[in-house]
Amino acid sequence: MRVRIVDVAALAGVTPGTASKALNGTGQLRADTRERVIRAAEQLGFTPDGIGRGLSSGRSYTVGLVTTDSFGRFSMPILLGAEDALAAGQMAVLLCDTRDDPVREKHHLRNLVARRVDGVILTGRRTDPRPPVAMPVPVPVVHVFTPSADPAAVSVIADDADGARLAVAHLRDLGRRRIAHVTGPQRHQSAAIRAQSAVAAAGPAFAGPVRYGDWSERWGRQAVTLLLRHCPDVDAISCGSDQIARGVCDALREAGKRVPEDVAVTGYDNWDVMALASRPPLTTVDLQLEELGRCAAGFLLDAIAGRPRPGVTSLAPRLVIRESTAGD
Amino acid sequence: MRVRIVDVAALAGVTPGTASKALNGTGQLRADTRERVIRAAEQLGFTPDGIGRGLSSGRSYTVGLVTTDSFGRFSMPILLGAEDALAAGQMAVLLCDTRDDPVREKHHLRNLVARRVDGVILTGRRTDPRPPVAMPVPVPVVHVFTPSADPAAVSVIADDADGARLAVAHLRDLGRRRIAHVTGPQRHQSAAIRAQSAVAAAGPAFAGPVRYGDWSERWGRQAVTLLLRHCPDVDAISCGSDQIARGVCDALREAGKRVPEDVAVTGYDNWDVMALASRPPLTTVDLQLEELGRCAAGFLLDAIAGRPRPGVTSLAPRLVIRESTAGD
Repeated sequence: MRVRIVDVAALAGVTPGTASKALNGTGQLRADTRERVIRAAEQLGFTPDGIGRGLSSGRSYTVGLVTTDSFGRFSMPILLGAEDALAAGQMAVLLCDTRDDPVREKHHLRNLVARRVDGVILTGRRTDPRPPVAMPVPVPVVHVFTPSADPAAVSVIADDADGARLAVAHLRDLGRRRIAHVTGPQRHQSAAIRAQSAVAAAGPAFAGPVRYGDWSERWGRQAVTLLLRHCPDVDAISCGSDQIARGVCDALREAGKRVPEDVAVTGYDNWDVMALASRPPLTTVDLQLEELGRCAAGFLLDAIAGRPRPGVTSLAPRLVIRESTAGD
Repeated sequence: MRVRIVDVAALAGVTPGTASKALNGTGQLRADTRERVIRAAEQLGFTPDGIGRGLSSGRSYTVGLVTTDSFGRFSMPILLGAEDALAAGQMAVLLCDTRDDPVREKHHLRNLVARRVDGVILTGRRTDPRPPVAMPVPVPVVHVFTPSADPAAVSVIADDADGARLAVAHLRDLGRRRIAHVTGPQRHQSAAIRAQSAVAAAGPAFAGPVRYGDWSERWGRQAVTLLLRHCPDVDAISCGSDQIARGVCDALREAGKRVPEDVAVTGYDNWDVMALASRPPLTTVDLQLEELGRCAAGFLLDAIAGRPRPGVTSLAPRLVIRESTAGD
């Protein structure tokens, strides 16, 4: 006997409408509700026929996830968040990697359209806006992390100005009065926006100028040499990335400075392998990448349902406090 | 006028059969041939109708890629290699993340089957064999990185014994005579196999016992303290991971030992953010993860075509030589 959606709903203790939403990924539900429905469907062996349903409804219940970021440091958590929000139900996720190649991107988008995806999520490794995407036919698109330069497009990004402000406000709350900022290349919007916000948040406590360089531990170490020469009374360093902050901590220790007693240090990204391995572990800004992915998926479901949310939505990051500012 | 496959083939300078293979992902072609066909298809605007073709051929031209590894350090390069081999043509890749949860895995597999995938690739974060997978209906499955405990299954893995042997043989070639081995938990097969092979390769030059601990920089630093106390004449340390090796290099430097002049150090994984940021950069074993993914995709295409390759296929890793053994 074929298991019906009402059986699943009864076992999960929800209405059939909620069970359907959870399994179709067509509504925003609480994670534990969705989880309960999925487990009930699994326990009963509920199997919808994806292809058959796609043909009858005119929908494929499939979404394309297109990334330019082969390495995956930023896009992987975003993909997982989106996949979690979409695929918990019956929305399947087609993964495409463009490797930063516009020809490959066009090729993937054409194939996704040929497969009649219900929508597309586009992400990348940079926060600078990307050129508008040319879809072969109109299909809902949501940009995440890397926004679209088209103001009418739907984009979800992390609020970098807010992240840098959080870190520097924390340093000021600790009573620091000579706060330096060390970051990546000035031409990267992520470096420029964080720096501008850090300077504003530090106010009279800013120990300038902003030190632009590259996104590496090596640059963090070099910057400490410069800083200790030109600004020996620096008592805090806010960094544009965890890699830079890790290099800063190493160089401070090797120069005989204690972190955080003499100099407090903040990172940016909350990249666990860097932030936790640093000596000491880093206070840092968490970009909430999985949350970005979940939000993008939600916006895509809204757009598919005919309720797009054009413009740029910025999600607030979160400050994670560890020993590099808090002592032990 | 509809563009035909023969037009694409003519522009790419290949036979229609080769163009079809490249676009369908049904044969193993040279990367540049496939690339040429894709660019020709793109230039002409060639668009196959995925769903229509799926229904007429009884195939969906879709493959499921199921990972237990949310973090993505190991699975991401594997996914990219597989995606590259499959999706360059018309094989679409459905991404599923099980988060190490058997219920979620069953749920995803059931959905993939409902969508009539042509096959499934399963990967994970551990090299220990996993329990056989129970597919709801017979669909070709290839395991990669994490092999199946079922000897009749198709598994593609990195040859860990060979990797550890390569690293230690390199240290012996450099004339090192007191070679220690520092690695992760003994219960992990990756640690146990690498250790066994390192000991065998070092022969009389082995400075035992194997130091088992965890996969962290902190353990690498602690192990150096132990080693310098019990075996002060150690002149090489082969490590079970890049994170351990990075900690080893830091602790050696802080103990006044020069790397590689006094003690040569090798890592394992060639994880760029660790291996390159280490002071000095690490000589290490590259697992060739993208190649594993490409091979798994090829084996899956073979299995779909009715030519499965049961058993475990081990791919040889590659030694990457940098300053931690080679000086500068």
